Amino acid sequence: MELLKETLGKIKELDKEAMGKARERINNLIKPEGSLGRLEEMAEKLVGITGKRFPKVDNRAVIVMAGDHGVYEEGVAPDPQIITAIQTCNFTKGITGVCALAKQAKADVISVDIGVASDLKEPRVINRKIKYGTDNMTKGPAMTRKEAIKALEVGIEIATDEIKKGRNLLATGEMGIGNTTPSTAIISVLGSYDPQEITGKGAGLSEEKVIHKARIIKKAIEINKPDPEDGIDVLSKVGGLEIGGMAGVMIAGAAERVPVVVDGLIATAAALIACKIEPKVKNYLFASHASLEKGAARASKLLGLEPMLNMDMRLGEGTGAVLTFNLIEAAVYMNNEMITFEEAGIMRD
Amino acid sequence: MELLKETLGKIKELDKEAMGKARERINNLIKPEGSLGRLEEMAEKLVGITGKRFPKVDNRAVIVMAGDHGVYEEGVAPDPQIITAIQTCNFTKGITGVCALAKQAKADVISVDIGVASDLKEPRVINRKIKYGTDNMTKGPAMTRKEAIKALEVGIEIATDEIKKGRNLLATGEMGIGNTTPSTAIISVLGSYDPQEITGKGAGLSEEKVIHKARIIKKAIEINKPDPEDGIDVLSKVGGLEIGGMAGVMIAGAAERVPVVVDGLIATAAALIACKIEPKVKNYLFASHASLEKGAARASKLLGLEPMLNMDMRLGEGTGAVLTFNLIEAAVYMNNEMITFEEAGIMRD
Repeated sequence: MELLKETLGKIKELDKEAMGKARERINNLIKPEGSLGRLEEMAEKLVGITGKRFPKVDNRAVIVMAGDHGVYEEGVAPDPQIITAIQTCNFTKGITGVCALAKQAKADVISVDIGVASDLKEPRVINRKIKYGTDNMTKGPAMTRKEAIKALEVGIEIATDEIKKGRNLLATGEMGIGNTTPSTAIISVLGSYDPQEITGKGAGLSEEKVIHKARIIKKAIEINKPDPEDGIDVLSKVGGLEIGGMAGVMIAGAAERVPVVVDGLIATAAALIACKIEPKVKNYLFASHASLEKGAARASKLLGLEPMLNMDMRLGEGTGAVLTFNLIEAAVYMNNEMITFEEAGIMRD
Repeated sequence: MELLKETLGKIKELDKEAMGKARERINNLIKPEGSLGRLEEMAEKLVGITGKRFPKVDNRAVIVMAGDHGVYEEGVAPDPQIITAIQTCNFTKGITGVCALAKQAKADVISVDIGVASDLKEPRVINRKIKYGTDNMTKGPAMTRKEAIKALEVGIEIATDEIKKGRNLLATGEMGIGNTTPSTAIISVLGSYDPQEITGKGAGLSEEKVIHKARIIKKAIEINKPDPEDGIDVLSKVGGLEIGGMAGVMIAGAAERVPVVVDGLIATAAALIACKIEPKVKNYLFASHASLEKGAARASKLLGLEPMLNMDMRLGEGTGAVLTFNLIEAAVYMNNEMITFEEAGIMRD
């Protein structure tokens, strides 16, 4: 609890003064005012996050948190649970979706076992296992409050370590068969949605199974009665270990003034937890792609960050976030490389 | 005419056999089937375009065509016309919007004077001037049919030269104060839209001026009566020299099996011209961002290519296209770096 408290205490407002100066310069770059739209907003936000006039985002990593889910036994996912373990190891081998995209985006992939249901034999996976998957949330809380805090703190530690190594742009990724179920539960609780409205097919459920999944989510919420005003309570009762780890990464990014990219349904659920614990975290986040998963659009709206990419993706792992790294860097290049009308010797009215 | 005819004659269908094999592999990569959405579609399309199992897109350039517009004298643009000349030179200096984004995307910017209204003193601008801007299309055709063909052929020549140098991914960009006016005219003619419905504010017109601009477009169409079934006729009567050049780049890309990225209103108008001349060109194009310019969404729909980026941009110059280079490369990395379930030793039902 100490680490979480201390980290939350470090989170400040964006540097409004630096942002004002950045905006003034951006408005004078040789282009119609505002014509680079969200690149301009990103450039300004990056200045506010870092407090630096010309921030860099050239040292980047995606932290992939992996955990299993007790609720898996209720039949909420089409794939065998062992895939969590296999893929968590595969993230260190450069062969999964997020690895391929990270290679293109010149980012490292950091694989963290925060709660996989079996012991992993791949030494390059960072072992921070809290327990062998969460408990079945239809029968009681997914984890204790203490475990939820521990999950947040593992995320904080991993992210802070990376930032100490010089990372200036982070993304969260995840692996956990069944994890759209706790994510949808979190979004339902925090957004007061009926699970039926926002439950999607995850990795590929039939329509019938989606209805079943929504019922399971409803049951978990009814049994646990998570307090929507208490992010840690929601995380512990209907969340996941990897979701807590991701929220911790976001909290650490905010504390250390390093931007964190959030994608898809699961990362957005984690962001909602992080922002419920400390609303200022939101200022340090960038949304990436509009996931095809049913609840994703509403979750993004709830979080208040509009995605940039329209790629019909729904893989997870942090793929959408990594795909956004180059767009964020483009904003930095706009700010650094373009010159102003004055510098170009063009007079304006 | 010979070069245009010959180039059009080279355009073939996509390599369906190679695409089928690519799709089979993509469906078996370690991820839920279809979960990388448009990256998967792009990877498949790139295989179809190039006929290569693992295509590369690592040698890229944006060809920026610059030209002026006789219709400028009707008060359709807020900026002084001399900005076309200034920016066309600035493209060679790395200081404009497209230059900044190209630097991030590791792409070269090629600046071509195909019809700027004054002589340029920057030797790094490729001088292929057809004439000193188009004629005022409210008083007669913007150019002769011969000039329109010449514009297409300049685009073909420039693109073919680049492809000979090893380019495997191209984008079109443009500079031409007032060029949303002919672009909107083209889209009106080819989509049978009333100009009033689709005319936007360009680089920043007031509402009143937008209404004036729409009237000017309507007048130009009524006076010239372009034949919507004849792309060259539309280009010559209500188009622009840079728009013809861009369409030529697209035609050359299709002939040489090199993908071309299209962004925003003006490039989309050029793509509509190219596809009207030869519908197969469309298969070799990628759409990039959804421009904020009013007619852009309808133009994209008319072309039948959905943009990937939602960046609220409306600068032009090819900025949206260049921003898409990394996304296209991500599709290549997905195809090259990910392994299949079989290769991973995971059994599936």
